[in-house]
Amino acid sequence: CCIMSGSALAQSSITIYGLVDAGLAIERGGAAGNVVKLSSGMGNGSRVGFRGTEDLGDGMSTYFTMEMGMAVDTGASTQGGLAFGRQIFVGLKGSGGQVQMGRQYNPIDDTLGQVDPFGNGFAGRTASLFGNGPKNTGGYTARLNNVLQYITPNLSGFTGYASYGFGEVAGDNSAGRYIGLSVAYANGPFWSRLAYSKVNGNPATSSVKNTVLAATYDFGPVKAAAAYGINKDEAGGATTLDSSDMMVGITVPMGQGNFLANFTKKNDKTAADNGAKMYAIGYQYDFSKRTRFYIDYGHVSNDHTLLYAVNYSVDTGSGTNAVTVGMQHRF
Amino acid sequence: CCIMSGSALAQSSITIYGLVDAGLAIERGGAAGNVVKLSSGMGNGSRVGFRGTEDLGDGMSTYFTMEMGMAVDTGASTQGGLAFGRQIFVGLKGSGGQVQMGRQYNPIDDTLGQVDPFGNGFAGRTASLFGNGPKNTGGYTARLNNVLQYITPNLSGFTGYASYGFGEVAGDNSAGRYIGLSVAYANGPFWSRLAYSKVNGNPATSSVKNTVLAATYDFGPVKAAAAYGINKDEAGGATTLDSSDMMVGITVPMGQGNFLANFTKKNDKTAADNGAKMYAIGYQYDFSKRTRFYIDYGHVSNDHTLLYAVNYSVDTGSGTNAVTVGMQHRF
Amino acid sequence: CCIMSGSALAQSSITIYGLVDAGLAIERGGAAGNVVKLSSGMGNGSRVGFRGTEDLGDGMSTYFTMEMGMAVDTGASTQGGLAFGRQIFVGLKGSGGQVQMGRQYNPIDDTLGQVDPFGNGFAGRTASLFGNGPKNTGGYTARLNNVLQYITPNLSGFTGYASYGFGEVAGDNSAGRYIGLSVAYANGPFWSRLAYSKVNGNPATSSVKNTVLAATYDFGPVKAAAAYGINKDEAGGATTLDSSDMMVGITVPMGQGNFLANFTKKNDKTAADNGAKMYAIGYQYDFSKRTRFYIDYGHVSNDHTLLYAVNYSVDTGSGTNAVTVGMQHRF
Repeated sequence: CCIMSGSALAQSSITIYGLVDAGLAIERGGAAGNVVKLSSGMGNGSRVGFRGTEDLGDGMSTYFTMEMGMAVDTGASTQGGLAFGRQIFVGLKGSGGQVQMGRQYNPIDDTLGQVDPFGNGFAGRTASLFGNGPKNTGGYTARLNNVLQYITPNLSGFTGYASYGFGEVAGDNSAGRYIGLSVAYANGPFWSRLAYSKVNGNPATSSVKNTVLAATYDFGPVKAAAAYGINKDEAGGATTLDSSDMMVGITVPMGQGNFLANFTKKNDKTAADNGAKMYAIGYQYDFSKRTRFYIDYGHVSNDHTLLYAVNYSVDTGSGTNAVTVGMQHRF
Repeated sequence: CCIMSGSALAQSSITIYGLVDAGLAIERGGAAGNVVKLSSGMGNGSRVGFRGTEDLGDGMSTYFTMEMGMAVDTGASTQGGLAFGRQIFVGLKGSGGQVQMGRQYNPIDDTLGQVDPFGNGFAGRTASLFGNGPKNTGGYTARLNNVLQYITPNLSGFTGYASYGFGEVAGDNSAGRYIGLSVAYANGPFWSRLAYSKVNGNPATSSVKNTVLAATYDFGPVKAAAAYGINKDEAGGATTLDSSDMMVGITVPMGQGNFLANFTKKNDKTAADNGAKMYAIGYQYDFSKRTRFYIDYGHVSNDHTLLYAVNYSVDTGSGTNAVTVGMQHRF
Repeated sequence: CCIMSGSALAQSSITIYGLVDAGLAIERGGAAGNVVKLSSGMGNGSRVGFRGTEDLGDGMSTYFTMEMGMAVDTGASTQGGLAFGRQIFVGLKGSGGQVQMGRQYNPIDDTLGQVDPFGNGFAGRTASLFGNGPKNTGGYTARLNNVLQYITPNLSGFTGYASYGFGEVAGDNSAGRYIGLSVAYANGPFWSRLAYSKVNGNPATSSVKNTVLAATYDFGPVKAAAAYGINKDEAGGATTLDSSDMMVGITVPMGQGNFLANFTKKNDKTAADNGAKMYAIGYQYDFSKRTRFYIDYGHVSNDHTLLYAVNYSVDTGSGTNAVTVGMQHRF
């Protein structure tokens, strides 16, 4: 009764998906003055992607993801002109776990996105402070190239992640190398994850190390979250950055949405002592499964100099006070 | 009887569309000599896009468009390397109208595309003269970033458009700001539109202002078109460009296609007095709903210096005489 | 019984397809030292494309292809940032043949891809030597812009290809011009193809000329392949490169895959006499119609200086010994 054309059938092996996030960012307290921007990807980076899977039988399958990031406000690529800058990989899955090769997320970024009530975005992005430094001058690397990753099956609630990123420097295997390790545990209302990342420079005497321990507990009327992080940079063998971070947050279901709040503190252990505190509140209203409206407010107070600002998921902010108001549409 | 896979269902929320336009441009009378080119997007820019909509109930819906422009002759992006350079936005529609955020068209460009028998493309592109100057040295900006646009519902044939583009310069709200206003009216065979655009520089003492009034009347055997435009550039408070434009044109249905002709005149009001006249004729044969063949001829005569040439929708031309012959395929 | 949404129907005119190829390249013997890389497109360039066709009746049809190339290991475009760098064209097909306009393959590249058991990829890529020079310093141009190509219908096993690429240099029709000619013949187990390409520089006193004659014969238990090539570069009227190439190879079906081997020899006819020899062996296991695993080994021995290395389909190699091991997934 129903005839589908060959091309439509061919397409059944591929899914196109995406997210469009746009709204206003109102920023105050920046060095250059106040500004209002129409921004994209404040909550979650705007994207369009292709993914597919093939059943190979015997519980095995191959799969791939290609995800392009773009700014809805300008049409530009959001990862420096890369065609598929968000993530791109091909993988093989079996009873013993998954192996995937390509450009992939750092488990530090995954973990912060999972523990932060704001999903590490909006005016509440905990990584405005969390990590090795301000967004523009360092911090952890969210995505890494040339990565071979192994993911264990779910073992009684535990899932392990091990990543190796090839530095691809001829004659020096350790230069540019990346190592990522993570264990997650989920059991009913409780979730926790430990993540570690080390990215070497070239030469390998420089490196950036991050560790995060995160946990959430869903009490029903409210979900509580907490995270603790340690960051170290070494350049030429000397420690150049040394800091610890903590975040606490809550998510409170309210009507057709959620009220969110978090508090983040960075403790700078170097002589400069440029720490900072940040708090944020927000409300996200889910008009439908695919359309969300949001309004969020974040405030950063720097201990000494004006170093940290309220950042968003993809866009960089300039203000120590910021409001993000906008909408997200998924497809 | 018919089982569609989940991925095919998931795709029902997204439409992929596009246009491929390629052919030959034969240009004579340019400063560097004659040339024959295999060009793309002469009639309409070649493109591929994703769009979708979600019904939110109560007459409300959200929608998005992501449109990539590319050159079929080279594979390159046509808007300076932007991923989605043609247009990209997310919107909300209700009984009170539409609001959309993103990179959007200037109503000047929309209006010229609607009034010009050549759709502001091919060897008859009226914007070869219309606007603030030659394509490479100014003119109106076809697309603008960071734009919040409101479109009214159709009110007895009238539709209004109001756009605000954030300059996003910290400490100066007016620098880089864009304002676009337009009213369109359609009633049976009559259509008319008034459009205004002002784009500020940084600092805001520089600006480009364009106004166009356009109308068409469909007599049945022939559709007549006319447009009048005023352009002003100011730099540092002084007027640097000051011109007015007019265009008249006709569209005559002939067989499975249309015969087209237009005449455009630019009056340069500055001391340089570098005005120009242009006329063009063409025939477009619609082989099917999706495939069109075209042949067009345009001629520009500059009042004094060799300033204006016959341009096309996306590609820039070099000749004062130009023939475009090619095909378009829509999908 | 089955209702498809309008958007799904609209998509029936377009097919999305692609290939993801990723794995490890282990390279030894390069000037800068040994290296292990996680690479993409070693066997065949990773890609995602859109193609479609429209039946115009009377045996005529229009069609298009837009093919984007990307690196799975980094997310970057693989043809220098081009949106659709692999190929993009629109065409018209009738009983008299096909005409297509756009960015298209050189028949030299097509022919080498067809005759080489390794498909001109993996650690056995015959074009590591075949062509005008090492990948980074010349060689034939795989893809050309501004190309008008005519392809004959299949005439008793013969198919002809004629390409003209416009140089688009004003005042000089021959500068930058490309001419490609090819004839292929297939009859049962026998296949053969002759291809010629000439790409002019600007000015046209510089040019690159390549000729390849290739043939394969499928004996059943084994398929034999052979190719011979002649390459000439001229700069300012003087011959700067002058070489001939030969390749022999076999493909042996083994189990659910193929064992492959080839031997390539470059004879440098200039005073420098920088020729080289290369041999490669490999096995490709087709887990399914869409998923392939591969392991290949290639070795280059340069006659004098370290000029040639084992290259892959898209990525450039650094080693005179190279192993490629990885997987491909088509969709």
